[in-house]
Amino acid sequence: MTLIRQLAAEALGTSLLVATVVGSGIMAETLADGNIAVALLGNTIATGAILYVLIAMFGPVSGAHFNPAVTLVFLLRKEIALAPAVAFVIVQMASGVGGTMLAHAMFEQPLLQASSTLRTGGGQWLSEGVATFALVLTILGTLRARPEAVPMAVALVITAGYWFTASTSFANPAVTLARSFTDTFSGIAPDNVAGFLVAQIAGALLAWAAAHFVFHWRSSQD
Amino acid sequence: MTLIRQLAAEALGTSLLVATVVGSGIMAETLADGNIAVALLGNTIATGAILYVLIAMFGPVSGAHFNPAVTLVFLLRKEIALAPAVAFVIVQMASGVGGTMLAHAMFEQPLLQASSTLRTGGGQWLSEGVATFALVLTILGTLRARPEAVPMAVALVITAGYWFTASTSFANPAVTLARSFTDTFSGIAPDNVAGFLVAQIAGALLAWAAAHFVFHWRSSQD
Amino acid sequence: MTLIRQLAAEALGTSLLVATVVGSGIMAETLADGNIAVALLGNTIATGAILYVLIAMFGPVSGAHFNPAVTLVFLLRKEIALAPAVAFVIVQMASGVGGTMLAHAMFEQPLLQASSTLRTGGGQWLSEGVATFALVLTILGTLRARPEAVPMAVALVITAGYWFTASTSFANPAVTLARSFTDTFSGIAPDNVAGFLVAQIAGALLAWAAAHFVFHWRSSQD
Amino acid sequence: MTLIRQLAAEALGTSLLVATVVGSGIMAETLADGNIAVALLGNTIATGAILYVLIAMFGPVSGAHFNPAVTLVFLLRKEIALAPAVAFVIVQMASGVGGTMLAHAMFEQPLLQASSTLRTGGGQWLSEGVATFALVLTILGTLRARPEAVPMAVALVITAGYWFTASTSFANPAVTLARSFTDTFSGIAPDNVAGFLVAQIAGALLAWAAAHFVFHWRSSQD
Repeated sequence: MTLIRQLAAEALGTSLLVATVVGSGIMAETLADGNIAVALLGNTIATGAILYVLIAMFGPVSGAHFNPAVTLVFLLRKEIALAPAVAFVIVQMASGVGGTMLAHAMFEQPLLQASSTLRTGGGQWLSEGVATFALVLTILGTLRARPEAVPMAVALVITAGYWFTASTSFANPAVTLARSFTDTFSGIAPDNVAGFLVAQIAGALLAWAAAHFVFHWRSSQD
Repeated sequence: MTLIRQLAAEALGTSLLVATVVGSGIMAETLADGNIAVALLGNTIATGAILYVLIAMFGPVSGAHFNPAVTLVFLLRKEIALAPAVAFVIVQMASGVGGTMLAHAMFEQPLLQASSTLRTGGGQWLSEGVATFALVLTILGTLRARPEAVPMAVALVITAGYWFTASTSFANPAVTLARSFTDTFSGIAPDNVAGFLVAQIAGALLAWAAAHFVFHWRSSQD
Repeated sequence: MTLIRQLAAEALGTSLLVATVVGSGIMAETLADGNIAVALLGNTIATGAILYVLIAMFGPVSGAHFNPAVTLVFLLRKEIALAPAVAFVIVQMASGVGGTMLAHAMFEQPLLQASSTLRTGGGQWLSEGVATFALVLTILGTLRARPEAVPMAVALVITAGYWFTASTSFANPAVTLARSFTDTFSGIAPDNVAGFLVAQIAGALLAWAAAHFVFHWRSSQD
Repeated sequence: MTLIRQLAAEALGTSLLVATVVGSGIMAETLADGNIAVALLGNTIATGAILYVLIAMFGPVSGAHFNPAVTLVFLLRKEIALAPAVAFVIVQMASGVGGTMLAHAMFEQPLLQASSTLRTGGGQWLSEGVATFALVLTILGTLRARPEAVPMAVALVITAGYWFTASTSFANPAVTLARSFTDTFSGIAPDNVAGFLVAQIAGALLAWAAAHFVFHWRSSQD
């Protein structure tokens, strides 16, 4: 029963997160009339804002992962067992796509689209590795020492990432998959998804190792 | 006596909220000179900012509803009785219109105007349903577990909503009514108000049911 | 000795506040190249940010007034005696002008200038009344019930005020005086200062009375 | 062993800080298409955001200096011994340059470049003195009285500084050195570095003295 509630929290959180990323991208691009920096400002502010909200709200229920890379790290840290971790990831992937469809419905667009936005190459992959490294390090670095700061810290590391990485910090395999189904501002061509996922997993694993050393603890039993 | 103070808090809060939405819309549209994305940025930042302020200030007095959809949900949760709930809604509706007049007075415009901005259709209604769902879920999801985070969470869910919904997240029947009295940036044609209200109530009720399940409590007695 | 330290805090705070308002106005107008909405965004973000910083830092020392209207209200509430209140106001006025000179020095402009920006008329005065009412109500409404929220609440009520009032919320007699000495983005013509001051004092007194009723306490002895 | 972990925290923090400053500058300038005010908005938001994150995360490990001027002040306050202070500064300088290289790698630019952006003269030096004074005063003013506010206060004093100083608030010798290695938005010509460093050290020392008086304590033993 608790797992069902946790999966509902992950589903609501991931779908609202993706709906915000995709929907604010559509709104921003439509209104900005070619001024891409202003469009990215709108996209950034909306995404950072909803992350704070969703983590503050669902953190006490499911941990507010919304992200298979984060669930993987908590699995490695033995803070979640294998079966629920797999369920988390499946729900994240499915509800992320649902979030894309919800955004499209609100903006009266075809529900599922194939993105034509190319995002590939070494700079993009390095960016996703760095973005996911920073995200996971932030979570592991604040969760124990300053738990009340987690929602703001996660919101702001993605806020910064939208601007300081060349890829605008997807940093999340479920969000990446979901964004391949929109041919709007925030899309990524389906052929480029795999490269992003490999880079994100690599960044997450590196952050797991770095956090182990820098923050000097390993699991919830410490 | 306590109810009078609560009604005063709801009146001050709702009128300042609407004055901010309408006034910042006028300021932003005037200055932005046709760049609508920049105008929406100004409108968003002002609205999010005042929400934090009003909820931090009036939350301990009246609960800081400022919103008939929120009052309805607290009525269903038996956290407010019927008579004060009706009084809350009447005050919210009246002081919202007062807020529009206050904004017009500051910008030296006719005090009451009829909006000519059409906001209707399935995408708009779905947007209002999603926006109000997200708002009410946020309130119910943070109020018990992280009460100190409520002002920031509500401010940021509306900040995100201004960009990720196609309707820019009115999410509030009193604010919707009040915005039908301004023919400026934030207006809504009087004929389109009813559609928004139905969608908002539907979203609020859905959030009430979802919160009941996900957050696993029902009323203040739990 | 304690008073000297408090006056030093008021001097540092008021001068840095005014330097930020004036300096960010110069920077924003210079860079925005005629896009006034973007200039106001930069001016807003800088002002809101420094207010949080200065109140978080100097609040425990002097109460972080930086504003004769605020000092007046605390005098009426008997939370500060007459002699130190007069000293506070003198220091705020003088160091505000110092802040204008500091901003001019950083941007290599004449240290003292006479503003030619007209800000007068009923809409402007109503705006200053509303802005100062909202500022003082926010301070009185959060100080006792949520003291840790004061820096953010004050920063955000001014952030909102920059956009929702027609005058961009000076809301502070010392800052108004100081801004009459700069002929840049944030200036106000010397002849228009008196009208602003009267409106600000009126708004502050109204907030004092409203807070007395709504928040139901009168002074620090309650 | 603890020192190694502290140095790792300083290295990670300083390199991510510089990567954000430089990377977001490249992103913002590229997208803003000549609108420098919008570019500075993106640069500001990213920098403020990552500062909150890095200080929230690494504060409990190393104190989250990332800045030789800050380490110098803590040395003067006898809160860090000479040997670790020297190690901190060396690591900050080296990892700052590493951060520039990381940003260049993400944006597929030559890893090391010589900046051609001239930043010199009395207004610039005064700006750096004021910016570093404000930064160090903020740290010393919040660390003891409101430790939970430090990450937000430091993020926001730099956010304000980007706009209210003529130099956009480098306020950090390690970041200044690192920014001399990029010929992009955030660069500074190598010949202009020394002037900035002198001004920053002077501002930091002045803040140390002012804090001593205003906040009335001297070191951690008080």
